[in-house]
Amino acid sequence: MNFEGQHILSVNQFDRESIQAIFDVADKMTPYALRQKRTKVLDGAILGNLFFEASTRTRVSFGTAFNLLGGEVRETTGMSSSALAKGESLFDTARVLSGYSDIITMRHPQSGSVAEFAEGSRVPVINGGDGANEHPTQALLDLYTISKEQQYHGGQIDGIHIAMIGDLKYGRTVHSLSKLLSLFNNVRFTLISPKELAMPDSILEVLHKNGHTVKVTEQLEGSVDADICYQTRIQEERFESQEEANKYRGKFRLNQSIYTKHFQSKTVIMHPLPRDSRADANELDNDLNLHPNLAIFRQTDNGVLVRMALFALTLGVEKLVSKYDCDVNWYSSKR
Amino acid sequence: MNFEGQHILSVNQFDRESIQAIFDVADKMTPYALRQKRTKVLDGAILGNLFFEASTRTRVSFGTAFNLLGGEVRETTGMSSSALAKGESLFDTARVLSGYSDIITMRHPQSGSVAEFAEGSRVPVINGGDGANEHPTQALLDLYTISKEQQYHGGQIDGIHIAMIGDLKYGRTVHSLSKLLSLFNNVRFTLISPKELAMPDSILEVLHKNGHTVKVTEQLEGSVDADICYQTRIQEERFESQEEANKYRGKFRLNQSIYTKHFQSKTVIMHPLPRDSRADANELDNDLNLHPNLAIFRQTDNGVLVRMALFALTLGVEKLVSKYDCDVNWYSSKR
Amino acid sequence: MNFEGQHILSVNQFDRESIQAIFDVADKMTPYALRQKRTKVLDGAILGNLFFEASTRTRVSFGTAFNLLGGEVRETTGMSSSALAKGESLFDTARVLSGYSDIITMRHPQSGSVAEFAEGSRVPVINGGDGANEHPTQALLDLYTISKEQQYHGGQIDGIHIAMIGDLKYGRTVHSLSKLLSLFNNVRFTLISPKELAMPDSILEVLHKNGHTVKVTEQLEGSVDADICYQTRIQEERFESQEEANKYRGKFRLNQSIYTKHFQSKTVIMHPLPRDSRADANELDNDLNLHPNLAIFRQTDNGVLVRMALFALTLGVEKLVSKYDCDVNWYSSKR
Repeated sequence: MNFEGQHILSVNQFDRESIQAIFDVADKMTPYALRQKRTKVLDGAILGNLFFEASTRTRVSFGTAFNLLGGEVRETTGMSSSALAKGESLFDTARVLSGYSDIITMRHPQSGSVAEFAEGSRVPVINGGDGANEHPTQALLDLYTISKEQQYHGGQIDGIHIAMIGDLKYGRTVHSLSKLLSLFNNVRFTLISPKELAMPDSILEVLHKNGHTVKVTEQLEGSVDADICYQTRIQEERFESQEEANKYRGKFRLNQSIYTKHFQSKTVIMHPLPRDSRADANELDNDLNLHPNLAIFRQTDNGVLVRMALFALTLGVEKLVSKYDCDVNWYSSKR
Repeated sequence: MNFEGQHILSVNQFDRESIQAIFDVADKMTPYALRQKRTKVLDGAILGNLFFEASTRTRVSFGTAFNLLGGEVRETTGMSSSALAKGESLFDTARVLSGYSDIITMRHPQSGSVAEFAEGSRVPVINGGDGANEHPTQALLDLYTISKEQQYHGGQIDGIHIAMIGDLKYGRTVHSLSKLLSLFNNVRFTLISPKELAMPDSILEVLHKNGHTVKVTEQLEGSVDADICYQTRIQEERFESQEEANKYRGKFRLNQSIYTKHFQSKTVIMHPLPRDSRADANELDNDLNLHPNLAIFRQTDNGVLVRMALFALTLGVEKLVSKYDCDVNWYSSKR
Repeated sequence: MNFEGQHILSVNQFDRESIQAIFDVADKMTPYALRQKRTKVLDGAILGNLFFEASTRTRVSFGTAFNLLGGEVRETTGMSSSALAKGESLFDTARVLSGYSDIITMRHPQSGSVAEFAEGSRVPVINGGDGANEHPTQALLDLYTISKEQQYHGGQIDGIHIAMIGDLKYGRTVHSLSKLLSLFNNVRFTLISPKELAMPDSILEVLHKNGHTVKVTEQLEGSVDADICYQTRIQEERFESQEEANKYRGKFRLNQSIYTKHFQSKTVIMHPLPRDSRADANELDNDLNLHPNLAIFRQTDNGVLVRMALFALTLGVEKLVSKYDCDVNWYSSKR
């Protein structure tokens, strides 16, 4: 896949080779994200960071990634004020706003809206989430995190065992991550969810077709020798009745004692965040906050690397990054 | 007109010479806007982009223009959170915020508010729209577009024939553009609107006084040998009754077949945008989207050039721009 | 106090020496704020400017200060869109967002929230206001202004006489400023407020303990030989009854004639701003706007210097600032 000038709209665009290309560039971005090095490769370039649906962390992550490559960020948040609300077509909005920037990142509440916008855009568009549809950079940062965590333990993505827990029906992230993992070899999936919230058949078919091992279960039982435990949030209102919800209560949560009882000492804990930390939620308890295997904040940190990589690739500068290195005036072993 | 240190509040400030000065600088900005060149002339300067009334495209266009000159942008959107909402005077707001930036662009829902703000400001203020009153950069970009389109066809502004269609009573843009055009020679105006929405007498007087030819008509009829067709939106609720509205329905719209029937093959189509693309609106149909004479997105692109020119002129650096040229690290024939 | 890597959460952190250190750096920032010099010491550094409660001027002031040191700003305004509203803990928000920036400035409506956030943050956090609790940079800029005004009149902070007027009970700024002033020697406080809105005993104790002279009075009477008159706003709804409010009406306002009657010709007028300029408020009348002793806009200008100093100190670059000086391309005696 030649990334230059391409839109990044869906995980379906990627094959194993293109994922590796992204991850290779992300690896090279690490010293820049750590402020050990500084590049001006995108000096003078402008990102249009268009969040027609608000999402502080994704928006700031994109903006930070672009700044770290030396570029500037113009942005908008929310939709009430935009011309879209006054009946302007996505085509027009895209035609106009793409005249103000060199690349666009966009989130919008409506499925398919980002792809429709991209058709009118004169610059590459990266999907930052379009409703229930896609959020490809989240899937890529999840997979990149899995890759790095496996490397740390001397492993790789091929052959891993991942347990996914919670709401596997409505969770956009687990669907996209499953699709990406299906491009690798011999992955074992243990899918733990109440039957009402099971992984959709369409995803299961993809996994089976690619020869992966899938085990579907309704609760966390016995010992699970997973490399990765990918936890998600269940909302009780998803169940048919309160009785049904009560039946499952606590079965899809994770805390120190549940983790120790069911998982290996090396099992890495992931979550797409935000997690609900209110007392009645606690899908991932704070008593795990200092656990070395808790990778949730490494995920968000890795998001910056992956987004830097996508910017560099779609703007065709991935080989020029280090050519424009400059001093880090202010950095002195602060991290 | 010496622009340095001046506020840009109204089209009434301009004479023909000052308009030419702005357009000359805008022309020089083209390679920077195309990323063929990069300047750092405003490196370290800060724009206060104050949109107390939201307008995504105008706000982003100002911000982009300032970034392209090498400057930084601090901005605010909406008014509910501002001290203005707590009873602070525009004078105080201006005094305070002008201490944080080198130049201010401001939009505010209230007529006259930007001029009042400018009195308290210690730095130049550019009006980005103050209610029904003025939006001078829109008028300038419209006129600049007319100038460029005429140049493309081997012509100039003097002597052109412009048809203005739709709501000519409430349309701030057609009033301001008419005033600017009246500074030129022998312009022919064909003003097409329902009588309820006719061009105000005050504007007509300006046009007559300056010796221009004005034809007022209630609908688009016969062949109109206009160089420019400037289309605006009519809202049906503007009419006295639904019967009246029905009478005019479709008479002020433009699509491929209406365009072909009434206009010349070289007539350029303009619109201040946003256009309403919902089925019951369609003042400017999508079937014209790929027409080479459709200049609506050239208008918004030109807006960046005109705003760059105004920044350079009011900050007194219009002659220094190329002195601070630097390499465009990342650009490689991407557009 | 070694500032590098420290959070700035409360005025209680400071002693006289650390205040002097901040003011010394603020002094050095003056030519940069005046655009006479330009530094790139924080080139490549990113400020996370997180205003979960809106405050245009404080937010823009922080952003401008960071830009003037050469850094970039990513920001967020409001809380409805943030993960905090979805039940995310401040710890999680801090862990995530501190991965996107090198330093964070934060405002939040809840007392103690910024300190809680700081515990999760991996980078220094500066409190930009947490509800009724603290707003340390406001207190520092107030004290810095007092110091500069005294210097102008050949004096110093030790031994000054400050009159504080208005709502001394709920006014966060007068509490914090009093605490900072109490670190100096022989300060005279004249506290003028209705008894319902008197300075809290906890603050009075601090002042007495440190040997300062405190006079408490219910209205402005006779001649007050104050160096500083620090005015605040009273809201009439604070009183027990409308009769009570009527009793005090006009007793805590300041205008040209009241100022001349009660104060010295050298008394400096301060106010934390915004002031309410509506007819029924007028705690500080517009007829004083051009008075040379009116320091209210010098206060906000000084805010930029103090915030630049805090950024430089907490990032440990206060000695490197001038090392990375570069030309000011565009500046030519414009101020």
